[in-house]
Amino acid sequence: MPRLTASPAWTALEAHCEALEDARLGDMFKLDPQRAGRFSIEAAGLFLDYSKQRVTGETMLHLGALARQAKLADWITKLFSGKAVNDTENRAAMHMALRGAAGDYPEPYAGSVAAALAQMRGFVASVRSGSLRGRSGTPIGAVVNIGIGGSDLGPRMVVHALRAATDTALVLRFVSNGDPADLAAKIADLDPAATLFIVSSKTFGTAETLANARAAKAWLERAGLDSAAHFAAVTANAAAATAFGIAPEHCFPIWDWVGGRYSVWSPIGLPIALAVGMSGFESLLSGARDMDRHFRDTPFENNMPVLLGLLGVWNVNFLGAGTEVILPYAEDLRDLPAYLQQLGMESNGKHVDRAGKEVDYDTSPVLWGMAGSNGQHAFHQLLHQGTHLVPCDFIICAGGNEAAPEYDLLFANALAQSAALAFGKNDGEAWEVCPGNQPSNTLLLPGLSAHALGAMLALYEHKVFVQSVIWNINPFDQWGVELGKHIARAIEPGLSGATLPADTDSSTRQLVARLKRRD
Amino acid sequence: MPRLTASPAWTALEAHCEALEDARLGDMFKLDPQRAGRFSIEAAGLFLDYSKQRVTGETMLHLGALARQAKLADWITKLFSGKAVNDTENRAAMHMALRGAAGDYPEPYAGSVAAALAQMRGFVASVRSGSLRGRSGTPIGAVVNIGIGGSDLGPRMVVHALRAATDTALVLRFVSNGDPADLAAKIADLDPAATLFIVSSKTFGTAETLANARAAKAWLERAGLDSAAHFAAVTANAAAATAFGIAPEHCFPIWDWVGGRYSVWSPIGLPIALAVGMSGFESLLSGARDMDRHFRDTPFENNMPVLLGLLGVWNVNFLGAGTEVILPYAEDLRDLPAYLQQLGMESNGKHVDRAGKEVDYDTSPVLWGMAGSNGQHAFHQLLHQGTHLVPCDFIICAGGNEAAPEYDLLFANALAQSAALAFGKNDGEAWEVCPGNQPSNTLLLPGLSAHALGAMLALYEHKVFVQSVIWNINPFDQWGVELGKHIARAIEPGLSGATLPADTDSSTRQLVARLKRRD
Repeated sequence: MPRLTASPAWTALEAHCEALEDARLGDMFKLDPQRAGRFSIEAAGLFLDYSKQRVTGETMLHLGALARQAKLADWITKLFSGKAVNDTENRAAMHMALRGAAGDYPEPYAGSVAAALAQMRGFVASVRSGSLRGRSGTPIGAVVNIGIGGSDLGPRMVVHALRAATDTALVLRFVSNGDPADLAAKIADLDPAATLFIVSSKTFGTAETLANARAAKAWLERAGLDSAAHFAAVTANAAAATAFGIAPEHCFPIWDWVGGRYSVWSPIGLPIALAVGMSGFESLLSGARDMDRHFRDTPFENNMPVLLGLLGVWNVNFLGAGTEVILPYAEDLRDLPAYLQQLGMESNGKHVDRAGKEVDYDTSPVLWGMAGSNGQHAFHQLLHQGTHLVPCDFIICAGGNEAAPEYDLLFANALAQSAALAFGKNDGEAWEVCPGNQPSNTLLLPGLSAHALGAMLALYEHKVFVQSVIWNINPFDQWGVELGKHIARAIEPGLSGATLPADTDSSTRQLVARLKRRD
Repeated sequence: MPRLTASPAWTALEAHCEALEDARLGDMFKLDPQRAGRFSIEAAGLFLDYSKQRVTGETMLHLGALARQAKLADWITKLFSGKAVNDTENRAAMHMALRGAAGDYPEPYAGSVAAALAQMRGFVASVRSGSLRGRSGTPIGAVVNIGIGGSDLGPRMVVHALRAATDTALVLRFVSNGDPADLAAKIADLDPAATLFIVSSKTFGTAETLANARAAKAWLERAGLDSAAHFAAVTANAAAATAFGIAPEHCFPIWDWVGGRYSVWSPIGLPIALAVGMSGFESLLSGARDMDRHFRDTPFENNMPVLLGLLGVWNVNFLGAGTEVILPYAEDLRDLPAYLQQLGMESNGKHVDRAGKEVDYDTSPVLWGMAGSNGQHAFHQLLHQGTHLVPCDFIICAGGNEAAPEYDLLFANALAQSAALAFGKNDGEAWEVCPGNQPSNTLLLPGLSAHALGAMLALYEHKVFVQSVIWNINPFDQWGVELGKHIARAIEPGLSGATLPADTDSSTRQLVARLKRRD
């Protein structure tokens, strides 16, 4: 097999890209009055307009050829059938089973998921009804999730996103950082007797999470409470959780076939179920399930995750974009960029392919973003007049709670930004000129409902998978994070006076010396 | 004058960069045991270790030559003497005067600032003491800042950063988004009778801010309150504020010689003074003042903002970095990346130079980031094993409230990440290899104090200015944001049925049609 960059589909795209070099979005729209309709699709209740990408019909054909060359259809089959697509760890990636309907997935997936959902259902009902009480007999009024990375970003983002659909007075908070200030700030105004902590860690060995769990336990004990009644855990290491003092009936499972960044659909999503009830959580799952089916069953040319993935490849590998910006025009989606950052960058931030060879093309871009319209008053200046190609995903939620005319200002701004970025402005003083030709997608959700959110998150999951197939990398491992953990364990004792390893560099030595004398 | 990219200093740097192409940070440290000390400086209480940048002594000499070629010293003089460095708007950029000591700056700056600080002092005392009361006689217990961009990011970030130093029970909240959900969520649990809104808008014409201010007024009126007693304003358009119904004695000034993204030191910082008192606010100013003096008076080779700026130019223009990541290892600094994003990207996201010519080099990179250690469990995988050069700024606050041994885990992680990124790991399986050679700065603050924070923010302001001088662009305007505002005004009526302008593209038409039928 030739290298990807020497393959027929890739070199054809390079030649095509060169031919398109001077193409302007403004001209493309003028030449084809039907362009918007031609480059839009619907799936699982979502509407995607990608007509402001710098593509033609021919580009899409070339990208489709690239997908076929990469045997994308076979990979989708492998993914859904539970093959060990995470080859460096010899594991399946079966997060789709977490949201499957009865009969969709075989054992052990179906049974494990059904049992976990049943356990969640009972627990959620007892907390939301007030029947679960702390040791002193006080009903639980606040739940603090302790987790980091995939054990934090998903539930945090979804709970904030579904604020308007939340139907409980429970206070829900999220503590992740190894900085003790995080927990301290989040519990300062809580009553220990009415507080429940959920400790989420697949291994029950994550340093930050354990430090925070221990500090939470000490806080409860200082209030004279037996901490066992104030903890639950989500972990694949129930033995460690029970050794910590968590009741076995409050230990929820997670499995090695679910990666942290794909785990919001599992008991890691417990805070979501506490906020919007099991029916809300199940709507989230059903939205994702609808997108799974669309992804698995739809020809590439109408397949939303496939198109989104291929458009990203076009922007990164042919137009040269180093970043992608996520612009949800919804304050309640303010945590979405951080969630997608992990999903995309931890999955596809890789430099060796599945054969272990160094790649000679870019993989995941840097993903970043902010809730709009805030960014317009901050970094959009660079999008309009800077020197970088920055593809944008505009996300608009219109309907349901977001139907009132007061939303017109927000939505008009989203549409105006995508138009301004695409078409620019060529008159006026030199400093007023906006070059335009910045590509963007616009994704419409029928309101910020659990179903729509679930469909959107699954859309991005599958987009990331599609790109991993094109780039021939494993999106389900994250070996790069191990080195830092290893070095941290060697440095930490040095901060309280222990000798550093002999090969420690002079910068680390200097910084340790300065941090040691802090006061 | 030759183009910058054809100039002697620039071409010398290009040749030098080529010669350094194979240089590895690991080798540089091995060859020079004194490297850490040689590439570190102190200023205004901050310590910067830049030894993990991919530079040699020769690189620094070449960068110094580039600064001299750009007449950086003259530009610094122009900046501090109130010349119209913002040439497209014919304005000075005298935000340094907001933090000047008596005698540092001439009139009208000194007198305007002193009067504004005196007005702030009286107001802050009356709110913090409970003597300022709402119309019903209830003392003010909650202050909601309504502003966006520069009228939001600075006060929001600093108030959160100084959480541990906050000595009032006042609730402080920030509403910025044009999304009505933002205000709704922030006032849901507040008592209108005890709530004060600060409306911050230089023009008092910012669409999002006015929409939120009107909604806040309606909320007060629905509670039967005369809203006048529940509002203050920070604006250069006091006439519009009083027409809105804000008492003249509650109108604070802002001036055309202070850009929004440089305004946290002005009455825009009122929420900060409410949180930590005027003495805390003045500590913030004094930290920035110390950095101003350092920047103005120190030879380039020991000048922290100059070095930080030149290192950024090296990374962007010679090593090819398209982004820079800000990693404050402090949860309370979680909003710093968004603040620096505006500061850097709105200032230097420009494509024409001061002569109006299109540049042929990159200007501001995309700035992004997250509080550490969270990012380690999210996007650091890409930093360690992705395909992009991503220079990192590690920020560590050690001392004061951040002195306890519980911080060792956090600090060890910060140091470990910078070491892992610099030196990598070459053994093990292909997927375990980390290429290393990712450049980083490490900035130490003596705790998260107002003084240290002020010094750090001024450091980044001046870094941005230094880069603007090298790139020969005006960092104080933001013309690129006007086009989108203009288009939004044309689209908004379309969402409630008005005819769209005849030249509206088919994508905008399609999206407007879909958003119109939302329900």
